[in-house]
Amino acid sequence: MNVLDRIAPLRERVDRELEAFLPAGGERPTSVHRAMRYSTLAKGKRLRPVLAILTAELFGQTAERIAPVAGAIELIHSYSLIHDDLPCMDDDDFRRGMPTCHKAFGEAIAVLAGDALLTCAFEMIIQNGTQGGFGPGVLLEVIGELSRAAGSRGMIAGQVEDIECEGQEIDIGRLEYIHAHKTGKLFTASVRAGALLAGAPQGELEALTRFGALFGQVFQITDDILDVEGDTAEMGKTSGSDQRKKKATYPRILSMEKSKQLAAELVEQAVTALAPCEPRAAALIELVRYLPARRA
Amino acid sequence: MNVLDRIAPLRERVDRELEAFLPAGGERPTSVHRAMRYSTLAKGKRLRPVLAILTAELFGQTAERIAPVAGAIELIHSYSLIHDDLPCMDDDDFRRGMPTCHKAFGEAIAVLAGDALLTCAFEMIIQNGTQGGFGPGVLLEVIGELSRAAGSRGMIAGQVEDIECEGQEIDIGRLEYIHAHKTGKLFTASVRAGALLAGAPQGELEALTRFGALFGQVFQITDDILDVEGDTAEMGKTSGSDQRKKKATYPRILSMEKSKQLAAELVEQAVTALAPCEPRAAALIELVRYLPARRA
Repeated sequence: MNVLDRIAPLRERVDRELEAFLPAGGERPTSVHRAMRYSTLAKGKRLRPVLAILTAELFGQTAERIAPVAGAIELIHSYSLIHDDLPCMDDDDFRRGMPTCHKAFGEAIAVLAGDALLTCAFEMIIQNGTQGGFGPGVLLEVIGELSRAAGSRGMIAGQVEDIECEGQEIDIGRLEYIHAHKTGKLFTASVRAGALLAGAPQGELEALTRFGALFGQVFQITDDILDVEGDTAEMGKTSGSDQRKKKATYPRILSMEKSKQLAAELVEQAVTALAPCEPRAAALIELVRYLPARRA
Repeated sequence: MNVLDRIAPLRERVDRELEAFLPAGGERPTSVHRAMRYSTLAKGKRLRPVLAILTAELFGQTAERIAPVAGAIELIHSYSLIHDDLPCMDDDDFRRGMPTCHKAFGEAIAVLAGDALLTCAFEMIIQNGTQGGFGPGVLLEVIGELSRAAGSRGMIAGQVEDIECEGQEIDIGRLEYIHAHKTGKLFTASVRAGALLAGAPQGELEALTRFGALFGQVFQITDDILDVEGDTAEMGKTSGSDQRKKKATYPRILSMEKSKQLAAELVEQAVTALAPCEPRAAALIELVRYLPARRA
């Protein structure tokens, strides 16, 4: 059984939470509610909430208990994809195998659907977390973690630099800054959210924080590689789009061969980072080892 | 001394909080941080945080203690103005006496600055609230209140309907729906946030909730009236823009005379709603009575 099959039940669990939490498409204002569901419930890997769940499981928590809160992280991810795809940003037409949100619903509704997803992520943590019996202290910690990770010193910083670098020659340091923020911060926060909800001790929390950042870096390098080598149909988004937009990518700056080598090295660093959590960390190790081999 | 002079110290207190909390314009990514400060620190009435403070004062809390959390409400308001002004939404060039955010920084940075303000509003509540000695339970309640008010069943619902109604003939019921959501929800949440932080008893919380909704309605009617009768320089935004965009407004649907009459009636209802908080509610009464006379 490969790792994707193994995490399928977690992905489905998260999907059920999202399905139940998001307002029905028939509820007024229908356009924005349909757009929120369209973009969020589209086929996705749900890697961020799955990471939160797998991390919490290290400390004896169950998916049943964590998924209702972890789903909120997917709402933040979904909002960021909708806004990143806008004509004034990356101007993408195709995402998760479907027209992007603004192509399907128009730009105004896409902006508002993104805004609404970001807003209701925090509502979901409070509502589901409280129902799930988490105390206000830990829920506040998780909200703080995610708002910092998604904010102007986190994910948004990466998106800003990414846009501002388009068409420029940049060095590896700047590329790493972009991805440590754009991708790394939310992956790290996902792992930390799981650890916080499960009451992880400080030493392991720090180890997992390093793991989350490395996981994000490997994910991004393999994303850049897939944009060159991947198949549009399998990925659900247009391959070669980084090159057309003259985006800075690992293969472009380092060469394809060195990018693959770097990804392999970072996987080993990620595994090493998990040492304090051994031997319980098998699922996380399997997941990070899968990234360089992924097709989508 | 008129009411604006009376609330000036509160407005300044809120401004100091915003000034201190927002990342410096020189901090990377500078474009988005400058845009966040540009739009938020622009001259504004700060009515929402001031309402939160005045409400909390009813129950013996001080501005000193509430302002650091109330400022977050202004961040949410500021984000909503930036996104509403975008070309794909209301396409406004002029706000608070200056070019709108996308005119000054470009569309991509305006979208991201709005996203960042919304995100850091929650961070501000947690950081400042915790430093101010508020417990996690009440801070979670305030975040829940604001995320519901700002979300797709609140402020965003109003903006969606507003956009979708442009150029259409609509009835007074639909106009009321738009404004109860677009304007009313955040005003109501501001009042409730102040009441919750101050530990208001349930009966007064309900009275204040009614007051907040009525305050929002009066604010919106007088906003529509100002768009016809106001002076562009005094308002800091272009007068007559509702008419040019064929927006549904109270004067257009009800006539100017009946709009003024309705505003006056709703002011009295708002004052009546405050009966359970008498005689402590003088400042709130003065503020709602000021709305029909405002020039900006």
